[in-house]
Amino acid sequence: MTGTATREILKLTARPEVISFAGGMPAAERLPCELIRGIADELLGGARARELLQYGQTEGLKDLRAELIEYLGTIGLKAADEQLQVLSGGQQGLDLMCKAFLDKGDVVLVEDPTYLAFLQIVKTYEAIAVGVSADENGLVLGDLEDKLKKYRPKLLYTVPTFSNPTGKTYTAENRKSIIALCERYGVVVIEDDPYGRLRYDGEEVPTMKSFDTSGTVVFISSFSKTVAPSLRVAFAFGEPSLIRKLSIGKQCADVQSPALCQAIVAEYLRRGHFYPTLEKSIAAYRKRKDAFLAALDAYMPDGVRYTRPNGGLFIWAELPKNIDAAAMLPEAVARNVAYIQGCEFYADGGGRNTMRLNFSNSDEQRIDSGVKILSELIKSKL
Amino acid sequence: MTGTATREILKLTARPEVISFAGGMPAAERLPCELIRGIADELLGGARARELLQYGQTEGLKDLRAELIEYLGTIGLKAADEQLQVLSGGQQGLDLMCKAFLDKGDVVLVEDPTYLAFLQIVKTYEAIAVGVSADENGLVLGDLEDKLKKYRPKLLYTVPTFSNPTGKTYTAENRKSIIALCERYGVVVIEDDPYGRLRYDGEEVPTMKSFDTSGTVVFISSFSKTVAPSLRVAFAFGEPSLIRKLSIGKQCADVQSPALCQAIVAEYLRRGHFYPTLEKSIAAYRKRKDAFLAALDAYMPDGVRYTRPNGGLFIWAELPKNIDAAAMLPEAVARNVAYIQGCEFYADGGGRNTMRLNFSNSDEQRIDSGVKILSELIKSKL
Repeated sequence: MTGTATREILKLTARPEVISFAGGMPAAERLPCELIRGIADELLGGARARELLQYGQTEGLKDLRAELIEYLGTIGLKAADEQLQVLSGGQQGLDLMCKAFLDKGDVVLVEDPTYLAFLQIVKTYEAIAVGVSADENGLVLGDLEDKLKKYRPKLLYTVPTFSNPTGKTYTAENRKSIIALCERYGVVVIEDDPYGRLRYDGEEVPTMKSFDTSGTVVFISSFSKTVAPSLRVAFAFGEPSLIRKLSIGKQCADVQSPALCQAIVAEYLRRGHFYPTLEKSIAAYRKRKDAFLAALDAYMPDGVRYTRPNGGLFIWAELPKNIDAAAMLPEAVARNVAYIQGCEFYADGGGRNTMRLNFSNSDEQRIDSGVKILSELIKSKL
Repeated sequence: MTGTATREILKLTARPEVISFAGGMPAAERLPCELIRGIADELLGGARARELLQYGQTEGLKDLRAELIEYLGTIGLKAADEQLQVLSGGQQGLDLMCKAFLDKGDVVLVEDPTYLAFLQIVKTYEAIAVGVSADENGLVLGDLEDKLKKYRPKLLYTVPTFSNPTGKTYTAENRKSIIALCERYGVVVIEDDPYGRLRYDGEEVPTMKSFDTSGTVVFISSFSKTVAPSLRVAFAFGEPSLIRKLSIGKQCADVQSPALCQAIVAEYLRRGHFYPTLEKSIAAYRKRKDAFLAALDAYMPDGVRYTRPNGGLFIWAELPKNIDAAAMLPEAVARNVAYIQGCEFYADGGGRNTMRLNFSNSDEQRIDSGVKILSELIKSKL
């Protein structure tokens, strides 16, 4: 097993003087502390307190699963109880999917670039991640089919809505075609959806799962970015036979998720706090995203290209080919600005001249200063 | 991956009319709901609320690690921060140890019988658990050395204090000899210690870790049985190089444990609630253990043998050879009494005539009725 960049970066961002565009944290001031405090107090003072501190079922708290069915309805998904597995963060779902499906040497297809922690998880199972090229519509279907034929992969991993790291969203047509191809080749699709509710502009695109008529897609989503990361409450939604594999894996991995955290999220949903609180975060993040793009437009030299995402937490920047973003990171940190070098997100290496920029966790002023510092550093390399 | 008996049994025990000697749950009425409520309310109302809901470090909350160092001091262990990894339940530590050390086909030595979930975890890594025979002193050293030579195992897994399932405790001499042998053969020892603080009678025996001068032992303990199971707060204590493997594994598995649960346990320890609350549980569990043994003495026919544990949660019963405890379970459940068939705890099968009996989660009256029903069922088989 190898070390992880994310972890080291989470440490960096702890230094207050660092303007961190690394990480993918919600804004601390957006976290609904008082709502959660009130719910926790009622739960621990109520009739169910003992139940919430005692061992519970691996599948997850019944109330939470019931609320998840309601919640999924609000995003156009019709779920049944036996199609749900509560997870300790969406990443646990990625780990358990790999544990259930991958043997040493197996291939997993991923978008190039993709979520770096998924690449690290695949490594821990001694499996091989192969990158599929992508364009503004989503995955390049010809390349996907070639690689489905060539590698006979076990899984396709996607973050189709406000992708980590690029912030891009696959079109509805692209989603349908990906599912059709994966059905034909009998490949399970992981739809990782941590950011789907964080839309700032443009039209809602239906989830891949909503186009899935054959049970090819396992939809994994989380409340880390929309309620609170450290409650570690997430879930998987898929065919009972696949969900059962995750349940068995979770039984071995950690028995169950903490019931108190599950009950807090269940109550938070039941009391209708989710969307009203989310709306406020969306308004704040939209401002930050726009401020970030405005600063990039104002300061970045020609030859630097970047995405203009409609949602999520990230902007993806491509620097002139001669600039190595990984080599430049220590210089940036010395100037108190942090980002993640894009090469971390590539299955097959490459992307040395790219970087992932988070806009949710810095205010407009720090965004402006940080982008300015970064732009000057880049100019000095031209 | 195979299904798990534990999980099905946890479901059984949900039926209120069932007198369950299965599972290994603390008594619901012993769970410190009000203390935890007060702590949670102060934490979520205080200056650190946002920090506790935001992403944190994989290694665990700094406060909790500081309190763990104090706590370990109270049981004769001197730990440093870099020797600690916070876990989501002790079982996560077992899973991460297997993930870090085992490749397909590798051998792990275990006591025969041992904790069934560990056997299931080993299976999920396609490794092989080989049983070492045990006697009243602990592991049979001759058999251990033969199997260290023969199988060249990667790990030895032990529950040396109030073992799950037998309730037995290895002697100090046996512990020292096990460590010496494993040092010689370069085998890492897992000391799983969920029950060590639950002593009702007899003299404290030092942990295996306290005899470990070479870093051979990884000590894994949990607050599931002593504070509250569903907080899922546990930890591993070992050499930094081994702990680092667990941290990398956890980074991939679930990023971090919920900070709120970690902070609740840290405060619970810091405020000195741990030992006074534990003393009350110990008094209650001692009564139940004695009531269980009294009922066994009163009702069980000749030819049924059972352990008389000084602590922990379990009594281990051996029935006449002709009685199959697994085949008898449905009949027992039909009479509203549940236990776990002992064969689940054997690496190499066997133990068909054994059963694990939990005494912590039923009051004296239900213990008496349940043991009586079980005894009559057994008599009917003689």
